[in-house]
Amino acid sequence: MKKNKITAIYPGTFDPVTNGHLDIIDRATKLFDEVIVAVAVNINKTPLFTNDERGNMIKKCTAKYKNVKVEVFDTLLVHYAIKKKASVIVRGLRAVSDFEFEFQMSLTNRKLAPGITTIYLMPNEKYTYLNSSLIRELAKFKGDISGFVPEYVRIKLAEKFSKRK
Amino acid sequence: MKKNKITAIYPGTFDPVTNGHLDIIDRATKLFDEVIVAVAVNINKTPLFTNDERGNMIKKCTAKYKNVKVEVFDTLLVHYAIKKKASVIVRGLRAVSDFEFEFQMSLTNRKLAPGITTIYLMPNEKYTYLNSSLIRELAKFKGDISGFVPEYVRIKLAEKFSKRK
Amino acid sequence: MKKNKITAIYPGTFDPVTNGHLDIIDRATKLFDEVIVAVAVNINKTPLFTNDERGNMIKKCTAKYKNVKVEVFDTLLVHYAIKKKASVIVRGLRAVSDFEFEFQMSLTNRKLAPGITTIYLMPNEKYTYLNSSLIRELAKFKGDISGFVPEYVRIKLAEKFSKRK
Amino acid sequence: MKKNKITAIYPGTFDPVTNGHLDIIDRATKLFDEVIVAVAVNINKTPLFTNDERGNMIKKCTAKYKNVKVEVFDTLLVHYAIKKKASVIVRGLRAVSDFEFEFQMSLTNRKLAPGITTIYLMPNEKYTYLNSSLIRELAKFKGDISGFVPEYVRIKLAEKFSKRK
Amino acid sequence: MKKNKITAIYPGTFDPVTNGHLDIIDRATKLFDEVIVAVAVNINKTPLFTNDERGNMIKKCTAKYKNVKVEVFDTLLVHYAIKKKASVIVRGLRAVSDFEFEFQMSLTNRKLAPGITTIYLMPNEKYTYLNSSLIRELAKFKGDISGFVPEYVRIKLAEKFSKRK
Amino acid sequence: MKKNKITAIYPGTFDPVTNGHLDIIDRATKLFDEVIVAVAVNINKTPLFTNDERGNMIKKCTAKYKNVKVEVFDTLLVHYAIKKKASVIVRGLRAVSDFEFEFQMSLTNRKLAPGITTIYLMPNEKYTYLNSSLIRELAKFKGDISGFVPEYVRIKLAEKFSKRK
Repeated sequence: MKKNKITAIYPGTFDPVTNGHLDIIDRATKLFDEVIVAVAVNINKTPLFTNDERGNMIKKCTAKYKNVKVEVFDTLLVHYAIKKKASVIVRGLRAVSDFEFEFQMSLTNRKLAPGITTIYLMPNEKYTYLNSSLIRELAKFKGDISGFVPEYVRIKLAEKFSKRK
Repeated sequence: MKKNKITAIYPGTFDPVTNGHLDIIDRATKLFDEVIVAVAVNINKTPLFTNDERGNMIKKCTAKYKNVKVEVFDTLLVHYAIKKKASVIVRGLRAVSDFEFEFQMSLTNRKLAPGITTIYLMPNEKYTYLNSSLIRELAKFKGDISGFVPEYVRIKLAEKFSKRK
Repeated sequence: MKKNKITAIYPGTFDPVTNGHLDIIDRATKLFDEVIVAVAVNINKTPLFTNDERGNMIKKCTAKYKNVKVEVFDTLLVHYAIKKKASVIVRGLRAVSDFEFEFQMSLTNRKLAPGITTIYLMPNEKYTYLNSSLIRELAKFKGDISGFVPEYVRIKLAEKFSKRK
Repeated sequence: MKKNKITAIYPGTFDPVTNGHLDIIDRATKLFDEVIVAVAVNINKTPLFTNDERGNMIKKCTAKYKNVKVEVFDTLLVHYAIKKKASVIVRGLRAVSDFEFEFQMSLTNRKLAPGITTIYLMPNEKYTYLNSSLIRELAKFKGDISGFVPEYVRIKLAEKFSKRK
Repeated sequence: MKKNKITAIYPGTFDPVTNGHLDIIDRATKLFDEVIVAVAVNINKTPLFTNDERGNMIKKCTAKYKNVKVEVFDTLLVHYAIKKKASVIVRGLRAVSDFEFEFQMSLTNRKLAPGITTIYLMPNEKYTYLNSSLIRELAKFKGDISGFVPEYVRIKLAEKFSKRK
Repeated sequence: MKKNKITAIYPGTFDPVTNGHLDIIDRATKLFDEVIVAVAVNINKTPLFTNDERGNMIKKCTAKYKNVKVEVFDTLLVHYAIKKKASVIVRGLRAVSDFEFEFQMSLTNRKLAPGITTIYLMPNEKYTYLNSSLIRELAKFKGDISGFVPEYVRIKLAEKFSKRK
């Protein structure tokens, strides 16, 4: 039987948040009582934007949703989800190459925390080929990224790359 | 903002229902207010079990859930979902070879009914390699299928193949 | 060194032609001197439209191109291409699941006719998930297919399915 | 309608050029009026050979083609293609794992420069499993790479690794 | 610890046997004491050649191996393997699209008969794109198939298709 | 005809050895006279455990097999296999994403050493989603990894990460 209140976690690096991510968040807000967008502290490689910058961009772009929270986390995802009493982890699935990593993640999390369900959403076909690393590449070379990210993020990227040179 | 009540549809041929399907149904009942297991009338090939037989096997195996309904449908899935006021379509995703068909289905349904979200769940790794056609093949040759399907379904399969000869 | 005149063949079943196919044809007309859209007589399964109907729909929808010809063929593709003095075979590539079949076809044709090159084009992302069998399925159940096929094809599909009942 | 003259760009890192690359170049020279082999300045990782070394190896190995030019570029590929008035970008497609990256690249470039078409060629099956990183690995350990690269490249690799130790 | 004598089964439809299959058989004869080529009675679709014809073609083409036997089987593969006291099932793996079916088969067989190990061999790259259905298609249209099958099989195919018309 | 004695090599980084690896080793010991587990000196990235530590963990966990040897190697795999007079290279195959790399490796090794056959085994479905990098990630964050690795390895991982902080 369904619980009274369902909290869903949408984890990611969000370096930066794209229109594809926002499409997933919009869908999730309609299905679950609370959606926590969880910004992962990336330990393996240095992100372009700091943890705070990444979190703030998402806050700006999701301000209109009453049931969205943005947080930074630096532990194992399932441990974080348990602490937050979440019963759902939301992931976007855009490409076959995502599939096997996600499969591994889904099965591992299921073993470590059987009460949490990982669900996958496929973004609008306009965003299928979108990812943050493509956005950063385009922005670095001054390619046109309007239509791929919100205006606020577009400006932050331009600032970042003008500072860098 | 989330709606008051979320109805999810889990469509399939279920010829017959397997432990993998039941794993998905169990998860869905915990996330959504109502789960409709929708048995597709297969027009392209003759199923082993009739529509009624397939529906009844699912009913037997999901009797313990208060929020599960079993129905047969023979229209376009999105039209059926709209009629049922469902906002979620649930699908299992077991293998890369499922992925592209599902992607097509997800994007088409999204175009035809933007208010409905298709979500994907990955079954327990014990059921990754399970599908109904493998079950039928094993049952036909009297292979051991306990552990793949509920006891009730195992008996129905044995009956079906003993009648057939 | 490049030849004086390049003829390209775009083979397919085209049952019926879709906006995705037309997107490929449009691109091909700009790259090659002559484009022959070659309608395959399908021997393995009965198509919804006859050879003539399929050819005529393509002719209507490509009338604006001076360098497009539409023909029906019922031999091995490479034999047909050699007869037409074509040096290019054009194929659309939409999905990973297409890839290996195409790879096999490309390598086989290369062995049988080393002078002919198979090239692949990816259609606009709006048409990624489009294929003729999806269109037929939607049309059969009166789903909305405008935006997937030209108006002329939409009418022919409606006629076909109203006759059939 | 086809343009008077078609310029095609074949971009890559070419670190070093292999028989698989040369197979693609040979095919491209027969289809298009001019083929520019465009050596990408790799910003993400240090190549084994310098930009000039990579360009020179290609020049040596393509000297027999009248319609091939070799250049180095360090901007966004589409910007470079526009500058060169190219209407075609040529890519080799060897493996499923290439597919999704190429799909993303093709769709992005199409959005940024709608007048440019990306086409894919599959190399001879002898070269399917060939790539530059495999070649470098084999050369480093003194494995036999004749048959994978032209003699000139084989010598340059041997020199590079004898200097390095 | 290794058993005294290892029997391997190489199952398939072999409709007809190709150079790719023979490459796998050659390798298997060098690794295992006995290799049984097991011709599956295909119940789902009518093969071009009868069970006997398929078996005989393999016998002709493997006559030089002392440790090869050819048999027809019509039960579940693992049941057949147990009866033969085989400890190995050999399969060819040519393409990603084979992978998931094989994975399912490997795991199911492992569950039904834990003492039997399924091993996979990749054929020579010359045979990567070869399969029996391509061979039949080419032979039907009088395409050149020498180099894909032994001369004996080429003749049998020509006979079959000349009779059929 | 089969040789008198078959030596198989099972190469890998084993950083650290997992239950999935041990499952493959167990199977191999039953099929071949001698199994050499060959620990690769990874030149591209620094492993968590040293060559000796990785070798010792495998030795501890395979002590019960009479026909297993553990060695470290730092040359090209085929050169090492030739030196050891091995006729088989054993590899685990868990996922589609492994497939193409393995295909390349198999074909390259075949070209460099035609007398050596690469065979693939699929591990138990319990270990499908297991790999050493996932284990390291879980261990770092104190996730529960019993059931994924032998107790001896679990302790070594705990020691390694407690030292590191």
